[in-house]
Amino acid sequence: MSAGFASLDALIRPRSIAVIGASDDPARIGGRPIAYMRERGFAGALYPVNPNRAAVQGMQAFADVASLPETPDVAIVAVPGEAAIQAVEALGARGTKAAVVFTAGFAEVDAAGAAAQGRMVAAAKRHGLRLLGPNCLGLFNDAIGFYPIFSSSFESGWPLPGRIGIASQSGAYGTHVFAVARNRGMGTPVCVTTGNEGEVTLADVIGWMAESAEIDVICAYAEGIRDGARFLAALDAARRNRKPVVIMKVGRSALGAAAARSHTASIAGDDAVADAVFAEFGAVRARTTEEMLDIAYAAQKRIYPAGNTLGVITVSGGAGVLISDAAEAVGLPMPPMPEAAQAALRAIIPFCAPRNPVDCTAQAFNLPSAMGEFSSCMARDGGYKSCLAFFSQVGGSRTVAPKMREQLGAVMRAHPDRLWVLSVIAAPEMVRTYEADGFLVFEDPTRAVVALHAMGRFGDAFAAAPPSPPPEAPRVELPAESPSEAEAKRLLALAGIPCVPERACATPDEAVEAARGFGFPVVMKILSPDIPHKSEIGGVLLGVADAAAVRQGFATLLARAPAGARLEGVLVAKQVAGAVEIAMGLVRDPAFGSVAMVGLGGVFVEVLADVALRRCPFGAREAEAMIRSLRGFALLDGARGRPRADVLALARALAALSAFGASQPGLLSADVNPVMVLPEGEGCFAADAVLELEAWGAHPTCRPGQEGLR
Amino acid sequence: MSAGFASLDALIRPRSIAVIGASDDPARIGGRPIAYMRERGFAGALYPVNPNRAAVQGMQAFADVASLPETPDVAIVAVPGEAAIQAVEALGARGTKAAVVFTAGFAEVDAAGAAAQGRMVAAAKRHGLRLLGPNCLGLFNDAIGFYPIFSSSFESGWPLPGRIGIASQSGAYGTHVFAVARNRGMGTPVCVTTGNEGEVTLADVIGWMAESAEIDVICAYAEGIRDGARFLAALDAARRNRKPVVIMKVGRSALGAAAARSHTASIAGDDAVADAVFAEFGAVRARTTEEMLDIAYAAQKRIYPAGNTLGVITVSGGAGVLISDAAEAVGLPMPPMPEAAQAALRAIIPFCAPRNPVDCTAQAFNLPSAMGEFSSCMARDGGYKSCLAFFSQVGGSRTVAPKMREQLGAVMRAHPDRLWVLSVIAAPEMVRTYEADGFLVFEDPTRAVVALHAMGRFGDAFAAAPPSPPPEAPRVELPAESPSEAEAKRLLALAGIPCVPERACATPDEAVEAARGFGFPVVMKILSPDIPHKSEIGGVLLGVADAAAVRQGFATLLARAPAGARLEGVLVAKQVAGAVEIAMGLVRDPAFGSVAMVGLGGVFVEVLADVALRRCPFGAREAEAMIRSLRGFALLDGARGRPRADVLALARALAALSAFGASQPGLLSADVNPVMVLPEGEGCFAADAVLELEAWGAHPTCRPGQEGLR
Repeated sequence: MSAGFASLDALIRPRSIAVIGASDDPARIGGRPIAYMRERGFAGALYPVNPNRAAVQGMQAFADVASLPETPDVAIVAVPGEAAIQAVEALGARGTKAAVVFTAGFAEVDAAGAAAQGRMVAAAKRHGLRLLGPNCLGLFNDAIGFYPIFSSSFESGWPLPGRIGIASQSGAYGTHVFAVARNRGMGTPVCVTTGNEGEVTLADVIGWMAESAEIDVICAYAEGIRDGARFLAALDAARRNRKPVVIMKVGRSALGAAAARSHTASIAGDDAVADAVFAEFGAVRARTTEEMLDIAYAAQKRIYPAGNTLGVITVSGGAGVLISDAAEAVGLPMPPMPEAAQAALRAIIPFCAPRNPVDCTAQAFNLPSAMGEFSSCMARDGGYKSCLAFFSQVGGSRTVAPKMREQLGAVMRAHPDRLWVLSVIAAPEMVRTYEADGFLVFEDPTRAVVALHAMGRFGDAFAAAPPSPPPEAPRVELPAESPSEAEAKRLLALAGIPCVPERACATPDEAVEAARGFGFPVVMKILSPDIPHKSEIGGVLLGVADAAAVRQGFATLLARAPAGARLEGVLVAKQVAGAVEIAMGLVRDPAFGSVAMVGLGGVFVEVLADVALRRCPFGAREAEAMIRSLRGFALLDGARGRPRADVLALARALAALSAFGASQPGLLSADVNPVMVLPEGEGCFAADAVLELEAWGAHPTCRPGQEGLR
Repeated sequence: MSAGFASLDALIRPRSIAVIGASDDPARIGGRPIAYMRERGFAGALYPVNPNRAAVQGMQAFADVASLPETPDVAIVAVPGEAAIQAVEALGARGTKAAVVFTAGFAEVDAAGAAAQGRMVAAAKRHGLRLLGPNCLGLFNDAIGFYPIFSSSFESGWPLPGRIGIASQSGAYGTHVFAVARNRGMGTPVCVTTGNEGEVTLADVIGWMAESAEIDVICAYAEGIRDGARFLAALDAARRNRKPVVIMKVGRSALGAAAARSHTASIAGDDAVADAVFAEFGAVRARTTEEMLDIAYAAQKRIYPAGNTLGVITVSGGAGVLISDAAEAVGLPMPPMPEAAQAALRAIIPFCAPRNPVDCTAQAFNLPSAMGEFSSCMARDGGYKSCLAFFSQVGGSRTVAPKMREQLGAVMRAHPDRLWVLSVIAAPEMVRTYEADGFLVFEDPTRAVVALHAMGRFGDAFAAAPPSPPPEAPRVELPAESPSEAEAKRLLALAGIPCVPERACATPDEAVEAARGFGFPVVMKILSPDIPHKSEIGGVLLGVADAAAVRQGFATLLARAPAGARLEGVLVAKQVAGAVEIAMGLVRDPAFGSVAMVGLGGVFVEVLADVALRRCPFGAREAEAMIRSLRGFALLDGARGRPRADVLALARALAALSAFGASQPGLLSADVNPVMVLPEGEGCFAADAVLELEAWGAHPTCRPGQEGLR
């Protein structure tokens, strides 16, 4: 898949630039970029445009776009309101390929602003001009001294050389990340902030970085994803090119739109969908700025081990336990050293703890070669892909550190495919020395563990086999409006999702006949398109034990129906026993389309929110991985002496549901809850289902609920 | 409660010290402390003891303890093996009040070492000498230049003045924390490491700091708690004296002893018990060293707001969302500004976001007084107890920062009871300036939120009402060995825990009569002291519907009993419907005694580990708080249109169970699962119970399980 990210070259790597609204004052919005570019030695042509001045900051100024001696690759637009729209139009007409629009007062303000932004973007699109902004802070590409940005961030220093790119929807936050990175000695030559995202989005920027020669590691900051398809293409490009994406997405707690969304969505939240998409492509989500930069720092080594393992060498047993806790918390395995290797270490230092974490005790510093022997043994015999040495202040000691550095350095050079991290307290210049050797240095060992774990996640994503093929979705014709429960299950059955045997019965006689066919006990439910929340009116009867009870139940259910509800009779279903109840569902995400959900059934899906999500469609292998990722998976896996449930059948049903979701653009949501999962080999059956079709979307307050057969 | 922590004065704040095994070489273990104390100007008497030298490091040396011209308050013991034990004996005989034993080779090595340590500790106790170690790195109290420690940590600098104490079971880790703190500019004048804890434990050190005039904030590092009672007394003293305790306890992932512990314990783990104790006394657990020091840093202000709230002023909308996410994640409320105040802010900067977080936009820096007006409005009208200003690089800007500092500083001085935090990127000297003003400074806003939240947790603990009185435990005579299910429930009923009506029946006729008494359907269970895991042999029948089924069930259950099992008949119980199933339990913690547990019942208690713990006994208010803290509490609180469950009845039962646990030292564990909680006003009933008495403890592999009535 190629999404044409290279068309951003003119925006980020241009040979000429015009500044519309150029100012003679280097502190003003239209003056700052000119001053920056001249200071940083932008080698391309720089054309100030200002109809009121002959010269700007000592350079010849031009009256308008038409007067420019050549067509600039890109232009800054720093003129207000309507003039900005006219400038974009003029630039497009002239053939300029990109524009950075600083001008504010558009969609971020009100509807009139949004309309004006729409006209500006339409002009850009008409001419094939890539438009960054409006209302954006700009970008920089320090490698070519290109600074179409009006941030004051450079007061305390320019970016350092390096290979980390920053893509941010927020200007203030993007430059905040740049400044923190710079203070940590990390080089971020390219930073692009996208503002209102009228045309160029975060996805475009990530995609460009994924394909650009100057960037190895991508730090992204998102508030929301606007263009799902381009975002997927960008993450796909990054993964194909083995470029890690560390993403911070804020708004976990913002579930404002929940009321207007379907049931499954209100459990999952947009944020959870984004999480699932990040996981699908191996992008790692950071919780804090510090974590994002920790991961980016480690990623600069470009060592991404699949099947990562951690070996720890420590001079403090306590730190070893702390590191083990941290590794278990993130899920980074710390396998023990082989027995023979443990014996070898004990032969060097009798009271060492040789298992992993390996506590070599302070003794290691009294023995000339112990540090080298220990670390060599761990790399060679332990085979750890990540090696973390906790030396605390010893790493900063003028007397001990040089010896330690020499010995550990030799082992590192003998195993250049591993990640080597020192957790030391040392002066900045000593840290730089270690880094020059090739070590990663983290003062805090917990932060090191989190970063190392991320390297393994990138490695696993880069090495992952292609996903299993999704099942083919049978052609299923959806009705004009959202169907009843019985009809919903009929449609799902056509789509390949097995449903509990049941029959819609218009009379008590039919109900008795159906119940006899299934065998007692049975479940009876009121059948009406006007009663979505059946259990709330007592519309579900469980364990109906004989024919007389069926007749009585039929009357009871009809009597409980509210006046005016259209009654289609009663649904009689086989009561399934000994099953684990699971919930499955579909929800249509505005950015990423149909998304499938699976979780523990019944009330637990809501109360505990133990669910897994994935974009539709997907195959049974991915479905099984989702099921196995649930915290409550043990319930399906024979917890407390129960038989194991038929997870494969459930995975097949979930994959079929995902194919159904992907093939039905008119389907807003599906709630299949509960799905009764029987013991291995006996299959699974949907016992209740609600399908919500497009037409219902207009009435978000009146949506179907769900009840379970028990 | 006073636990005599002041007896550590001689250890930490002595007027004279002897060094047994004093060395002339200031790099050796017996020489380093002397060199340190002389360099740091210890003003008390310092007596080197060395039978082989007349002078040590230029000071007169003494041949032995008896020859000393006065009885030293404390002594360092740095002589090997048996000589160390003899030294402790001689010191005790002489009347020395404390000793710091560096000597290793004791309980940390083997059984013989443990025995030797036992003799040393016995000698100390005989003489009332407080013994730190053996195998400890020592301690320092920089306020008096007292350095009985052989760490090399001071190579890169001495402790800074301040009021933070470090209490650590690990020497290497304790001094690591000291070094990290020093590099962050934080003063830790006292650091005590406890080594093998032969006599003085972490609890003693925390308790001493809680009562000492020189320490405000306590940072503790624990691998395990040995002496529950003293630890509780220490936390209690700290809370009474309004001194925050930040504790890092490692070993979350170490559940090695689980197999030998009861069922409830294996869910909870010792670590969870420690967590519950920390929470009970308001000690805040840190997950990382960085977090511990972040919290200690903020705590130095000694502002601990009960009912903490967070007001955020930001120049980046994105950072505002990020901070909101972080606040919600830790549970720190961010209430909105009052409407009128929001209008006032909009009048100053029309496009600001005035709700909270308040995004004043970069505009704020263009208006001379905006920053002051905004922050003043937030403090006054918002009433926030914690105020966080995210200014990023602006806080380090030579042009803007001075104005911002002046305006914000004035507001801070007008509201000195609030916590004021700047999240800025600034050079270290500028950070020091802000700190001198009274601001807390965090570069990373997420870390600031975590630290601010901790201040509120301290404040809530310091302001908490005394706990509700636990119910009186009725006198219940426990049998000689672990009772059958029926007997267990009889005992629990006597202890005030309501149980499901049931009857032990020896014959089918008795069973039918019992069932008729309860009304159908009933539950039937095999009754045998030899069949703890009833459900595994099919020993539980649910929904037994009529007399014939009771007779048939009686025969079925007896037929299923394994050969040789003692059979006492069948238990017939009322089948409770419409209840929420809860699990309660007791476990005896080696450090903290009886601990009560409550969680979601059935399989969920194990699979999801959603449980709350508390030391026994406690009252109904605390019991209710435990129940409400469960993730799954919504199940009891009317989730999905169910009636609300009788939480008060459940809380009373849990409190009664806690009183029972506290009053029965012979009770090793109790599993009451499920407890059927009926709708409000209808009570709750234990449906199954297993009590494990002392005698069973010898056979940890053969323990009772549990089954549920359904």
